Amino acid sequence: MESLDYCDPGFTPLVVLELTSETKEEAIGWLLRRIRDLQQNGGAELLVEQLGPGVGAQEKENPNMFLVGASQQRLLSGAEDVGLFKECSDGSMRAFTCTNKHKFKDFKGDGDSFLSMAECQYIIKHELDTLRARDETHVPGYTEVKLYPGKSIIRRLQSKGILIQLFPLHEKEELKRLSFSWYKKVKLSFQPLDDIRHYYGEGQAFYFGFLEYFTFALVPMALIGVPYYLFDWEGYDKYVVFAMFNLIWCTVILELWKRYSASLAYHWGTLSRKKAFEEPRPGFHGVLGFNPVTGREEPIYPNAKRQLRIYLVSVPFVLLCLYLSLYVMMIYFQMEAWALSVHDDEPTFWAGILIFIPSIIYAVVIEIMNLIYRYAAEFLTEWENHRLESSYQNHLVLKVLVFNFFNCFASLFYIAFVMQDMVLLRQSLATLLITSQILNQFMEACLPYWLQRRRNKKMINRVRKRRTLEDKELPLVEQVRLEADMSMYLGTFDDYLEQFLLFGYVSLFSCVYPLAAVLVVLNNFTEVYSDAFKMCRVFKRPFSDPAANIGVWQLAFEAMSVIAVVTNFALIGISPQVKAYFSDSETQLILWTVAIEHVLLAFKFLLAFLIPDIPKHIQIRLSRLEFESLEALKKKRLLHG
Amino acid sequence: MESLDYCDPGFTPLVVLELTSETKEEAIGWLLRRIRDLQQNGGAELLVEQLGPGVGAQEKENPNMFLVGASQQRLLSGAEDVGLFKECSDGSMRAFTCTNKHKFKDFKGDGDSFLSMAECQYIIKHELDTLRARDETHVPGYTEVKLYPGKSIIRRLQSKGILIQLFPLHEKEELKRLSFSWYKKVKLSFQPLDDIRHYYGEGQAFYFGFLEYFTFALVPMALIGVPYYLFDWEGYDKYVVFAMFNLIWCTVILELWKRYSASLAYHWGTLSRKKAFEEPRPGFHGVLGFNPVTGREEPIYPNAKRQLRIYLVSVPFVLLCLYLSLYVMMIYFQMEAWALSVHDDEPTFWAGILIFIPSIIYAVVIEIMNLIYRYAAEFLTEWENHRLESSYQNHLVLKVLVFNFFNCFASLFYIAFVMQDMVLLRQSLATLLITSQILNQFMEACLPYWLQRRRNKKMINRVRKRRTLEDKELPLVEQVRLEADMSMYLGTFDDYLEQFLLFGYVSLFSCVYPLAAVLVVLNNFTEVYSDAFKMCRVFKRPFSDPAANIGVWQLAFEAMSVIAVVTNFALIGISPQVKAYFSDSETQLILWTVAIEHVLLAFKFLLAFLIPDIPKHIQIRLSRLEFESLEALKKKRLLHG
Repeated sequence: MESLDYCDPGFTPLVVLELTSETKEEAIGWLLRRIRDLQQNGGAELLVEQLGPGVGAQEKENPNMFLVGASQQRLLSGAEDVGLFKECSDGSMRAFTCTNKHKFKDFKGDGDSFLSMAECQYIIKHELDTLRARDETHVPGYTEVKLYPGKSIIRRLQSKGILIQLFPLHEKEELKRLSFSWYKKVKLSFQPLDDIRHYYGEGQAFYFGFLEYFTFALVPMALIGVPYYLFDWEGYDKYVVFAMFNLIWCTVILELWKRYSASLAYHWGTLSRKKAFEEPRPGFHGVLGFNPVTGREEPIYPNAKRQLRIYLVSVPFVLLCLYLSLYVMMIYFQMEAWALSVHDDEPTFWAGILIFIPSIIYAVVIEIMNLIYRYAAEFLTEWENHRLESSYQNHLVLKVLVFNFFNCFASLFYIAFVMQDMVLLRQSLATLLITSQILNQFMEACLPYWLQRRRNKKMINRVRKRRTLEDKELPLVEQVRLEADMSMYLGTFDDYLEQFLLFGYVSLFSCVYPLAAVLVVLNNFTEVYSDAFKMCRVFKRPFSDPAANIGVWQLAFEAMSVIAVVTNFALIGISPQVKAYFSDSETQLILWTVAIEHVLLAFKFLLAFLIPDIPKHIQIRLSRLEFESLEALKKKRLLHG
Repeated sequence: MESLDYCDPGFTPLVVLELTSETKEEAIGWLLRRIRDLQQNGGAELLVEQLGPGVGAQEKENPNMFLVGASQQRLLSGAEDVGLFKECSDGSMRAFTCTNKHKFKDFKGDGDSFLSMAECQYIIKHELDTLRARDETHVPGYTEVKLYPGKSIIRRLQSKGILIQLFPLHEKEELKRLSFSWYKKVKLSFQPLDDIRHYYGEGQAFYFGFLEYFTFALVPMALIGVPYYLFDWEGYDKYVVFAMFNLIWCTVILELWKRYSASLAYHWGTLSRKKAFEEPRPGFHGVLGFNPVTGREEPIYPNAKRQLRIYLVSVPFVLLCLYLSLYVMMIYFQMEAWALSVHDDEPTFWAGILIFIPSIIYAVVIEIMNLIYRYAAEFLTEWENHRLESSYQNHLVLKVLVFNFFNCFASLFYIAFVMQDMVLLRQSLATLLITSQILNQFMEACLPYWLQRRRNKKMINRVRKRRTLEDKELPLVEQVRLEADMSMYLGTFDDYLEQFLLFGYVSLFSCVYPLAAVLVVLNNFTEVYSDAFKMCRVFKRPFSDPAANIGVWQLAFEAMSVIAVVTNFALIGISPQVKAYFSDSETQLILWTVAIEHVLLAFKFLLAFLIPDIPKHIQIRLSRLEFESLEALKKKRLLHG
């Protein structure tokens, strides 16, 4: 970790803490005192300094920005607090403890470069989050901002709007190196996942690992899809072969990803890491009571009330939205019919283009509806008042997934099974897929980049006006203020959602449009670059998030793969080729389709059950650790007992 | 724990160890020395005495029977070794440690009655099992019985046939009390599960808990079934109502059982208990190598070889057996047709009875085939050479389940879906169910009881011949020899299997024969009594087995409930009432049936997912324990670090 050019040479700023410019002096003094105080006295024992005035000091610049850092010793004890796993000299991963620090592989001297900057920033965030009120009844200077013993001070300041933001600083040099090896070099190689994890933490690295894995997993499907598309293979047997391939492919890639992800998590030390007790999320409110687990005072909100809110408000709202989406879909079909009738009347060049217009408009409307619904879902989930961030996330993901799935695929299901028009299905699928890809790339990367670039130029120009800059590097003060203005990275939610929908397009209707996989592979190759670019250049650095897997998304993808099996079999069942084959008895046809579908579903579940979730060599290492700790305990007992 | 009337008043015999009568003195002396040796020297530090000669000493009576016990201190340290969980004074369950012993609820004075006798016996078994060879290369006196450092001595003696058996002793007084409250008193109350667990351990208690739970869960189904049977309700709507009820019932009772079982396991201290490292099972053989987990020398058998044996021999064998079972089924149908033709020719009283004969013969043949197959499956699974007992059990259960399921239900499926003869299905189901119940009760309880009773009488008569017995109690020596001759209890496998098949009869075809549930409830009421009786009077006491749930059987029951949903819907689809309803379009009928079935299956999985597996109050206690240990660690670090 290189020290940045700041007043105190022993102080490395890691995290920025910004209070509103009107914060009372009293409160600031109290907060800094609490942060600096020794741990024995209930403080966080961190270093904190105020950021000096920048070039725009005379303008409306916030003076209440603070840089937080910590001594090496404090960071190491913090690493023990958060339960960090690190690699030992013998190659195994163990929980770091200060007493055994010399057993760890990269621990040299004082342990200066032992922790990555992302880890240090995570530790500081954890220590700030668990800085608790003692006997204060309110924040000094603010009698309305109540405190009670054990309440997290930072969370209270955050929820009352006194603390505007808390974010980790970028490392210019590291970032340059990372972005060079990640997206600047045009090359045929894998992403530097370990470096990404080193800089952004495990949550980010898992997303990029999944993106890469998923893209490569699609390649065989894309390769098989091309001849199907080119040679118009549409026989019964070929359909079945493709559907079978699809089915096994879905199951196997998801199972293999689980194994790959377990081995990544093992090497990153998050697989067996124990989760710390989860604090209530900042927005959570309720009547003060005692938490049955910790025994600490904490707001309590009755579960029954939350369930009522969910079942009486949220569920009906989601259903209403689904109905609306259905309504919009019907309008689309009317437009489609109108365009077709115009084309049939006068088949000119412009009428030929007109045919695609309703699909494109519908695709744009779908994206807009998804966006609006997203805000509504966030508002509703917030209002449901979940105690834990994880439960909030799960409910949000569920709401958004259901609506997005319905919104994106309802029209396709309608065309496929009610209208039974395979040509329209193919055309609709292609238009939806391509339009949404273009829109996404634009909204996700280009727009924010352009905004950020303008901001960046403005700052450089402003600095240039005052001083001459030898190199193009900004001084720390300006750098911090620039980063404070950057957009906040909102997590991997939208990125995973996009991949989920793409997975849906590929797996649900791939029988009908085998080229979908090719389009998705192409999209994902650019997606890697644009996502990498936006992480490095557009957004504030996010705090690292020690994930052990992709969480609820694994489940979502698995659910989609089950739906895909059913859909593919239904598609085969209604295809004219198959109908011709069973021309004498439709009943026979359906019974066979259903029977084969059931067998394959059973086979799929069996396959998922039989493939172990953790690779054998990782399993052996985990058991060895457990065995060693049991043996050590036994030995200790024999010596002392 | 009451001391039995034996030479040394401080010695309570707990476990009996029987060596062959020809064992060499050298080996006996060495074994006893190793058992008595201090733990620091690698011994087991247990007490062991030879059993005195009984009344039949001059006859062919084995002199090499040994009683094993231990000091109170040794048992407590053993309890720590095996990771026993006990209730603390504050009501929480924690792992027992000798240093904190006074924090535990029932620990008084020396802790005399702290451990139940079953727990003491389990501890002694564990200590004997982990008594390892040091530098011996073979058992003294037997150069062919090889040893290597770290090899379990007892397991080697067992696999070479020198050790005949190792079993725990019954407690006469306890047993009397237990059997009185369990099955002697005719009463309407629940079984004394805690007492059963106290005497037999968690594995047994779980079986009886499940049996009781399952029986009560069947009661509503039986109650609903009666009017269906009496009033011949067979309309479409009623069918669907019953099938829906069936579906929700299956899912809900299995989920609720999971919760109930978790709360039982919590109170019995097995829920969060860590499993000790599993030793290879006695029959396992291979080339000597190093275990990658323990680093100990141990036989290694390549996994690829085992897979080859499974896929090239076991799987084809199972398939062959299934084919044979199919063949027998076809013979049954021929017999059935013949009996029917005889009855149609001359409808006399005897011909009326003749109709039932083929079903009864078939039911008996099914039971015999199951029995034979069981032995073959055991032989094959043994030959597959699994390293762990748990993996052996899983493979055995899988083999036996598949065959039993096929053997018992194939004919019913054939009648239902190929012959579509609902009258025959009903008759067949009833005959199979009733015959198998009668056979089972006889084979399981009556026959072994009668054999044991004869043996018991013989022993009492023999003792009477020599001495006059004041009371009818046998002296310890005779008691031990009597128990040594009792049959070995082979575990809960057959009992669970029986319940599994009954569950199949109830859930698969309950639409057609709603009375099945009534029969099963009646059977299970007597089953509780006969199982309890056989545990108390017929078999050797088994070692307790610290289970946290019913293991692989939960999965088996869940799989059956999924099959039940599919079967019930198929039955509804082919019922004449439903066909009449959709008389214009058979396709429409099938499509609707399949669609509803898919929705219900999805609903079933959602329900299983939404109902938490552990009740909330147990979850809170578990989190509290975890939180406390994290906090304690942090506090310790702050004080010392």
